Amino acid sequence: MTSLSNAQNGAPQPLNASKLIYTFTDSPRDVPDPAIACTGKETICTDHMILATWNAHTGWSAPELKPYGPLTLMPTASCLHYATECFEGLKAYRGYDGKLRVFRTEHNAARLQMSANRISLPFVDSKELQQLIYALISVDGSKWLPKSRAGDFLYLRPTLIGTQPSLGVQAPQSAMLYIIMGYMPRVDSVPGRMKLLTSPDNLVRSWVGGFGYAKVGANYGPSVLASQAASREGFHQTLWLYGEDGECTEAGGSNFFVVWLRKDGKKELVTAPLDDRLILDGVTRRSCLELAKERLSDELEITERKFTINEIIDAAADGRLLESFSAGTAWFITPVSHIRHREHDIKIPMGVHGESGEVTGKIKGFLSNIMYGRVQHPWAAVVPERTT
Amino acid sequence: MTSLSNAQNGAPQPLNASKLIYTFTDSPRDVPDPAIACTGKETICTDHMILATWNAHTGWSAPELKPYGPLTLMPTASCLHYATECFEGLKAYRGYDGKLRVFRTEHNAARLQMSANRISLPFVDSKELQQLIYALISVDGSKWLPKSRAGDFLYLRPTLIGTQPSLGVQAPQSAMLYIIMGYMPRVDSVPGRMKLLTSPDNLVRSWVGGFGYAKVGANYGPSVLASQAASREGFHQTLWLYGEDGECTEAGGSNFFVVWLRKDGKKELVTAPLDDRLILDGVTRRSCLELAKERLSDELEITERKFTINEIIDAAADGRLLESFSAGTAWFITPVSHIRHREHDIKIPMGVHGESGEVTGKIKGFLSNIMYGRVQHPWAAVVPERTT
Repeated sequence: MTSLSNAQNGAPQPLNASKLIYTFTDSPRDVPDPAIACTGKETICTDHMILATWNAHTGWSAPELKPYGPLTLMPTASCLHYATECFEGLKAYRGYDGKLRVFRTEHNAARLQMSANRISLPFVDSKELQQLIYALISVDGSKWLPKSRAGDFLYLRPTLIGTQPSLGVQAPQSAMLYIIMGYMPRVDSVPGRMKLLTSPDNLVRSWVGGFGYAKVGANYGPSVLASQAASREGFHQTLWLYGEDGECTEAGGSNFFVVWLRKDGKKELVTAPLDDRLILDGVTRRSCLELAKERLSDELEITERKFTINEIIDAAADGRLLESFSAGTAWFITPVSHIRHREHDIKIPMGVHGESGEVTGKIKGFLSNIMYGRVQHPWAAVVPERTT
Repeated sequence: MTSLSNAQNGAPQPLNASKLIYTFTDSPRDVPDPAIACTGKETICTDHMILATWNAHTGWSAPELKPYGPLTLMPTASCLHYATECFEGLKAYRGYDGKLRVFRTEHNAARLQMSANRISLPFVDSKELQQLIYALISVDGSKWLPKSRAGDFLYLRPTLIGTQPSLGVQAPQSAMLYIIMGYMPRVDSVPGRMKLLTSPDNLVRSWVGGFGYAKVGANYGPSVLASQAASREGFHQTLWLYGEDGECTEAGGSNFFVVWLRKDGKKELVTAPLDDRLILDGVTRRSCLELAKERLSDELEITERKFTINEIIDAAADGRLLESFSAGTAWFITPVSHIRHREHDIKIPMGVHGESGEVTGKIKGFLSNIMYGRVQHPWAAVVPERTT
């Protein structure tokens, strides 16, 4: 029906969150115990998901909030052959004040738009996407992230896939946007902290002229070989190097930070730059840099620049390597305790209490206080909860 | 039931084509007119498909031949987020002698195995996969590629996708293999022949240490931006360049060949090498090289080496550029008439009849004679047809 009225209308319809159709589940599921929510082979999602379809002729359908369940795709669907797919990752946080919050969703929404463009998928209006994200949290948040779980989160995954059932390699003429929400393990306190193995010479994550800056599926599947190899050697993630000099780019699927004393004696927080488009413009990365500049610039310089694994090895040898952490939405701020690069084993100080270095701990605290409502801050928006 | 018996058995079950379960459609569809078979937005597939599922614990299910139709996937399925997907493309040819043939399927089967490994998907036994390909052709070939269509083909797409319903980036613990068969346009005689636009500096198809050699989805979706730009300027495909010197790698999704007179006066057929793993080890590419070495080495040298767009520009300026063609399964041997690189417009001779150069025409003829049974050759295997 929507298609028909759109076609009659003439122009393809834009995504419109105000048209959201609510179809509530008639078989609500039990909320799992936090201890077992993330232990299985399946991600447990909440009762509902939001879904909208698009085609080049009629534009976007009215989005629908409906019971969580399987998708139906033709075997020829573009996303199953050509990786015409991109996504976002964000969280809903249950605050210590009992409120539900999201963190800087405007950046996730803008990034999905950019990723969609890189992978030739349709335009998704950022404000409408944000409204849909709010709608899902609003419906399922109270039950699935109850007030008794202050300090916990749910993970949201807006996903855009090409669905045109055609084997020609082309920009999909039909697509589907969906938003799901489920449990993800808390890994910012990995036992023994995070250990990174540098990528081998024959596995490169992204390259200049590629798509390492976009959150497209094509960046992830091909990275698993390296993480399997790291895992076999007892490491948690890959530290991705780039180029002949071994520039440090990303740690697993997170951004990568180092705190060290430079040779001039100045303390510095450093992370890879965005300008050659090798790495993801992470929302957590951006937030770390902004908070550090605002609150820690008296004690250290904050720098985005290329830096190499050899600089880390040198700093460690000189006793100048102070801290390292990975930063991303899924794994939050995770202190790095150990990096192995070829024959070099680099141990990284973990602070007086063995939990994290001082700068890492401060930044993690700043962010976590904002996300969980210990302080009020414009980056964290309260999502009204629908109580049924 | 299979899972249960497998689990009782202990070891994960290998893929076993002899266990194929036949479930024939009770609503067979009409075979489309060849003129309209490829004109819509959907690939028209035959009545049946073959499907097998895998999980890390039980191994492969018994494969099933069943009515062609939609797949059911959880919204969290790995392939929809992380491009854990790879595929093959091959054809069934209706010969002029009335027989159905396939061409060197052992190479496609071996390549799927290699691609699966690159994208952390399970091992697929090549011989079993070939048997499943044969089974599908055997069932649907007679009806969908009737003897009245000598010289036509159907396109087969074995596809392997990660199905584990989990948002963790990891090697999928469950997967699905399916084989579908449908109509694809014949594009080896594009009007005006194929015109190629070189890739812009900010779009690079593959890179050393990447996965350009594997037939994984991640190589295709990200390439569409460049082909859209080419299309807007009136070109059919992208000529992918690599590195500062502009090495010629692939043409669209095909391998790329040039015939020229070298500066020493020797006539040469040249294509990019496989050793740096930038390009696909095409079955058609391999066959062109082998046939040319066997049958044309008196008249020209056959060389796999790096060559640059500037060498093509120089050869054209000297009148030494003789022919060019792209080679692949989907688009077969397609003569290239025009390459634009930045401000250079390179016109390529198209032979005395304007159809293709002499070497291109000979190689195309060799291959087509083998595929369509005009000559008997070990590369083309006859597939027995099941008549219902």
